[in-house]
Amino acid sequence: MPIPMPNLYPPFNIVRLSHVEFIVTDLARSRAFYADTLGLQVVTEDAERIYLRAMEERGHHCMILRQGPKAEVSMLALKLYSEEDLDKAWDWLCEQGLPVEWVERPHQGRTLRTRDPSGMPLEFYFQMERLPPIHQKYALYHGVRPLRIDHFNCFSTDVDASVEFYNRIGFRVTEYTEDDESGRLWAAWMHRKGGVHDIAFTNGRGPRLHHTAFWVPTPLNIIDLLDLMSTTGYLANIERGPGRHGISNAFFLYILDPDGHRIEIYCSDYQTVDPDLEPIRWDLKDPQRQTLWGAPAPRSWFEHGSIFAGAHVTEPLLKAQPIIAP
Amino acid sequence: MPIPMPNLYPPFNIVRLSHVEFIVTDLARSRAFYADTLGLQVVTEDAERIYLRAMEERGHHCMILRQGPKAEVSMLALKLYSEEDLDKAWDWLCEQGLPVEWVERPHQGRTLRTRDPSGMPLEFYFQMERLPPIHQKYALYHGVRPLRIDHFNCFSTDVDASVEFYNRIGFRVTEYTEDDESGRLWAAWMHRKGGVHDIAFTNGRGPRLHHTAFWVPTPLNIIDLLDLMSTTGYLANIERGPGRHGISNAFFLYILDPDGHRIEIYCSDYQTVDPDLEPIRWDLKDPQRQTLWGAPAPRSWFEHGSIFAGAHVTEPLLKAQPIIAP
Amino acid sequence: MPIPMPNLYPPFNIVRLSHVEFIVTDLARSRAFYADTLGLQVVTEDAERIYLRAMEERGHHCMILRQGPKAEVSMLALKLYSEEDLDKAWDWLCEQGLPVEWVERPHQGRTLRTRDPSGMPLEFYFQMERLPPIHQKYALYHGVRPLRIDHFNCFSTDVDASVEFYNRIGFRVTEYTEDDESGRLWAAWMHRKGGVHDIAFTNGRGPRLHHTAFWVPTPLNIIDLLDLMSTTGYLANIERGPGRHGISNAFFLYILDPDGHRIEIYCSDYQTVDPDLEPIRWDLKDPQRQTLWGAPAPRSWFEHGSIFAGAHVTEPLLKAQPIIAP
Amino acid sequence: MPIPMPNLYPPFNIVRLSHVEFIVTDLARSRAFYADTLGLQVVTEDAERIYLRAMEERGHHCMILRQGPKAEVSMLALKLYSEEDLDKAWDWLCEQGLPVEWVERPHQGRTLRTRDPSGMPLEFYFQMERLPPIHQKYALYHGVRPLRIDHFNCFSTDVDASVEFYNRIGFRVTEYTEDDESGRLWAAWMHRKGGVHDIAFTNGRGPRLHHTAFWVPTPLNIIDLLDLMSTTGYLANIERGPGRHGISNAFFLYILDPDGHRIEIYCSDYQTVDPDLEPIRWDLKDPQRQTLWGAPAPRSWFEHGSIFAGAHVTEPLLKAQPIIAP
Ligand SMILES: [Ca+2]
Ligand SMILES: [Fe+2]
Ligand SMILES: [Fe+2]
Ligand SMILES: [Fe+2]
Ligand SMILES: [Fe+2]
Repeated sequence: MPIPMPNLYPPFNIVRLSHVEFIVTDLARSRAFYADTLGLQVVTEDAERIYLRAMEERGHHCMILRQGPKAEVSMLALKLYSEEDLDKAWDWLCEQGLPVEWVERPHQGRTLRTRDPSGMPLEFYFQMERLPPIHQKYALYHGVRPLRIDHFNCFSTDVDASVEFYNRIGFRVTEYTEDDESGRLWAAWMHRKGGVHDIAFTNGRGPRLHHTAFWVPTPLNIIDLLDLMSTTGYLANIERGPGRHGISNAFFLYILDPDGHRIEIYCSDYQTVDPDLEPIRWDLKDPQRQTLWGAPAPRSWFEHGSIFAGAHVTEPLLKAQPIIAP
Repeated sequence: MPIPMPNLYPPFNIVRLSHVEFIVTDLARSRAFYADTLGLQVVTEDAERIYLRAMEERGHHCMILRQGPKAEVSMLALKLYSEEDLDKAWDWLCEQGLPVEWVERPHQGRTLRTRDPSGMPLEFYFQMERLPPIHQKYALYHGVRPLRIDHFNCFSTDVDASVEFYNRIGFRVTEYTEDDESGRLWAAWMHRKGGVHDIAFTNGRGPRLHHTAFWVPTPLNIIDLLDLMSTTGYLANIERGPGRHGISNAFFLYILDPDGHRIEIYCSDYQTVDPDLEPIRWDLKDPQRQTLWGAPAPRSWFEHGSIFAGAHVTEPLLKAQPIIAP
Repeated sequence: MPIPMPNLYPPFNIVRLSHVEFIVTDLARSRAFYADTLGLQVVTEDAERIYLRAMEERGHHCMILRQGPKAEVSMLALKLYSEEDLDKAWDWLCEQGLPVEWVERPHQGRTLRTRDPSGMPLEFYFQMERLPPIHQKYALYHGVRPLRIDHFNCFSTDVDASVEFYNRIGFRVTEYTEDDESGRLWAAWMHRKGGVHDIAFTNGRGPRLHHTAFWVPTPLNIIDLLDLMSTTGYLANIERGPGRHGISNAFFLYILDPDGHRIEIYCSDYQTVDPDLEPIRWDLKDPQRQTLWGAPAPRSWFEHGSIFAGAHVTEPLLKAQPIIAP
Repeated sequence: MPIPMPNLYPPFNIVRLSHVEFIVTDLARSRAFYADTLGLQVVTEDAERIYLRAMEERGHHCMILRQGPKAEVSMLALKLYSEEDLDKAWDWLCEQGLPVEWVERPHQGRTLRTRDPSGMPLEFYFQMERLPPIHQKYALYHGVRPLRIDHFNCFSTDVDASVEFYNRIGFRVTEYTEDDESGRLWAAWMHRKGGVHDIAFTNGRGPRLHHTAFWVPTPLNIIDLLDLMSTTGYLANIERGPGRHGISNAFFLYILDPDGHRIEIYCSDYQTVDPDLEPIRWDLKDPQRQTLWGAPAPRSWFEHGSIFAGAHVTEPLLKAQPIIAP
């Protein structure tokens, strides 16, 4: 199945991925991980929820940690361009027969909750409480010096179908992995904001969240985080990397939070604002696809993911296997 | 004069700055500077013109060097979203009473040439010959490892008027410097592509081009370039830096090409895609505005610029003076 | 006057520079600067004294801050190879007619205090309390991530004489600046430990301490410190840099502590253990001597220094002037 | 068996490791690897031999590539402090019953060839042709920007015995790995020049050369090399890394040359000039010993090594196994 032509005039205007809510089983333990170790800034918190932002963000939050009985992901949230786009989104989603509801979200304006066709919970809003800049408050920088949320990566049981849906709402494919034998997509990277992706889909049991990525200044910050985590009790939370991705050309590290939610630390992909940007195709068998330097990902990386609240997980249609570290 | 509200629905859709043409008086000497020293890639060349691209660009050129009798700038070029936008641009520019003409440009589709109200020559196109990616051909990387053209900075005799015009065509102000006494803008940074700017305006004799900036991976590449230039005969071409800008928070270096065209090497500003991003105000007297670390720019930096072909240069309306290095 | 041949078999064996004691007028304010901002580790402290060490050091202290009425430098301390060397030092210094006395120094073994012929107070010891390694306790790293004390730089009224004395006790010249007209040394860099220097001498009113330098991992740590200092109230404490030295090829930054004691942050010079290493000569008029990239040092850098307790300061013999920033 | 006390007054004075000669089966192919890709500078060459130096070295060569029928290592060479030390070395080696002979080596003064008790060929000299500095000829820097040879690592069948011998000639242990059960050394790092090591020994079939290491400026140069090698046909030559060593705290990468000689790219260990530096003990079972971040080395890293010309290889005494990547 070929990559669809980009939809340059989508039914409503999504600006970028915005935030994620993780249900965590021990809020204090997660705070130590995200705020003290990674270096996200705590904006507001109470006994149930912690709102975090990264250093260059002006919106109130890019991550919400919520205490709960079981680790899962409440939703992925996307920022729309205007209030008008929010109403257009409502109408379009209704037309598609997808579930819609207005929900109350602290620190945000009107918020629309839906699920994509695979059951993945999404929330759209256009207005969030704006905060004073802290990107030049250098005394606050620590940990990996996270600058902004960069992307979501999701397991999909049918990557072709996921790409088809997100393409319709304006996401444009920048790179993709094809299974040569079946001609089906094994993975795809899609963007709105002008980087390699706001969201990516990887073949697997789904829908599940594979990881959430944060942008950092340079690869040296990633090395600093590895040194810090490996000497402060987080050695077992280091899953894969560091390395250079073949796909995206970004420098990466994958780590697991105390509940197993996977975080990618990421930097130096490329600008993709051209509407005529040609997607780059990779073969599933290409060992440099995952890591330009050849190191395969460990088995856990292909198998483990976070459950979305209320989403039913099924097996993927495509059975092809990438190269897995022995 | 306050910063105008962003125009979120401009008359035509500009994607980003695209390229610049420099008239240079010794093409071989300029080639040595841009290709051999900075590390831009020569795409095509003949006795009169050299087309260059940076490492992550897929369009045919981000800079054209043309042999000529006198150093000047032929035009600044901007990429539009679609052919429809090109026709909308024509119509809108006509309505404004600005000059319009279709021009032939090698390696580009239909190209519209105009001048902004200050007389600055602009060219709009939507289609350029696309080239295979080279961003993972690491054997080609050298010099400062330029990844992409990032922005233009122009002297304007009336920054308020420049901001007003570019705001109308969709550029959004991210940061600005105000003269407290007059309440007039002294400088402003405006973007389309989601970084701090595609174009900036600085008070001064104008219209003139102050500089053209290239994005590089990290500050260490800038240090490498300084080491290289200072030991290969380009010591006198280093004008200002390295340093951290207060405005934009980017890491910078200013250098002069053999004809005096100013180039900025630039990295690590921040993402600005939110339509409700609040512009950041700086006072003209704030010493950290220019360089966060306090070092003032040298006099040449405030006075020297490149002439635009056919543009009449006049004195600025605003006489306020920034801090200049003694 | 030519550089003397290295004395490969000195009368006693000096291993390296070891530590410095600064008299400071506000201990809490100095603690904020050295511990909280630079990132030196407080080892022990009381109301009068703070002992600090850098991250890879195992000895108890590389810097002592002592509360006093007037900013000055108590002494420069050097580590000897063995107790035997301490006794040899005593004998040799006596033979030279230099003052000697055994002094009690907390956390150190037997300590010999003397003054060099210019009156600069020196202390020799061979044994210091050893501490457990902290170089892999990455949670402790902050500020500029100082790894170790690297060198002292002193104003001397007669650099030829200083070089002659330190050469006799085994310091070897790695680089030097000569005044072409007089043939006299304007500055010299001398080492024991295998880097470009443990101690350097610069022509000027002396004896005074020009600066004390700390080694850090990479130039990016220096950029981080600049960002931090310029946004936490230390903007005026940034004196010169960052830049690449011509002499030593090191990357540098000069800052002033709250009392005006000058600190250099320094990295990436070269290994000098070869006994037949040829000293590198620089001309006083060479603009790349100070900064490879051409930027001259400010006037304060040539004039300001710290007084040594009890040392009489006189004018330099050599009146030649280096290039000073306008 | 405990680590021996350092011998602070050895029978002759070794300054540092100096160079290695590799027999290679295709000189042009090796030249492409070492000069074009790694960035070592070719000093002199003919049809049989290429002499290479790194960027900050002043001696004529740190590596000799010699065309031969079979990949092996001719010798490891060490620089002595003076001619007197060379004669002392002759006498001492004779006393030990070790083989000695004077050999002619181009570009070197008198050279003494011997074998250590395990049969490893060593050459001592004190004088080598000195070359003008190139460390500030930045146009020559490329590849991984190698600054200097840093250390050798050798397989030893009896690490306790190797440590005992090298300790007698003045090498001092900085870190070591002990097998808890047998109390025997599994590996040891020993220095002369003031870094973590000039030479290290690892338990295994020996004597064989495990690797030769080069010092580079920062971890980013190692990332650059990985990007370069993985996109220029050297993907299969990347063996292990990048990572932070537990032992030495250095940042590393292991690669294999076209004949399988292993090269380590290495930076940021620590200064060890103190004669009373306490060696750091590691347990063989500690997963952070090899890589602070926890990743085990691949099997090849424990098994593959280069043969020394004329040395008989035998099985190690100690059978203990470290953690090997699955
Ligand atoms: Ca005002
Ligand atoms: Fe990702
Ligand atoms: Fe700029
Ligand atoms: Fe210094
Ligand atoms: Fe090694």
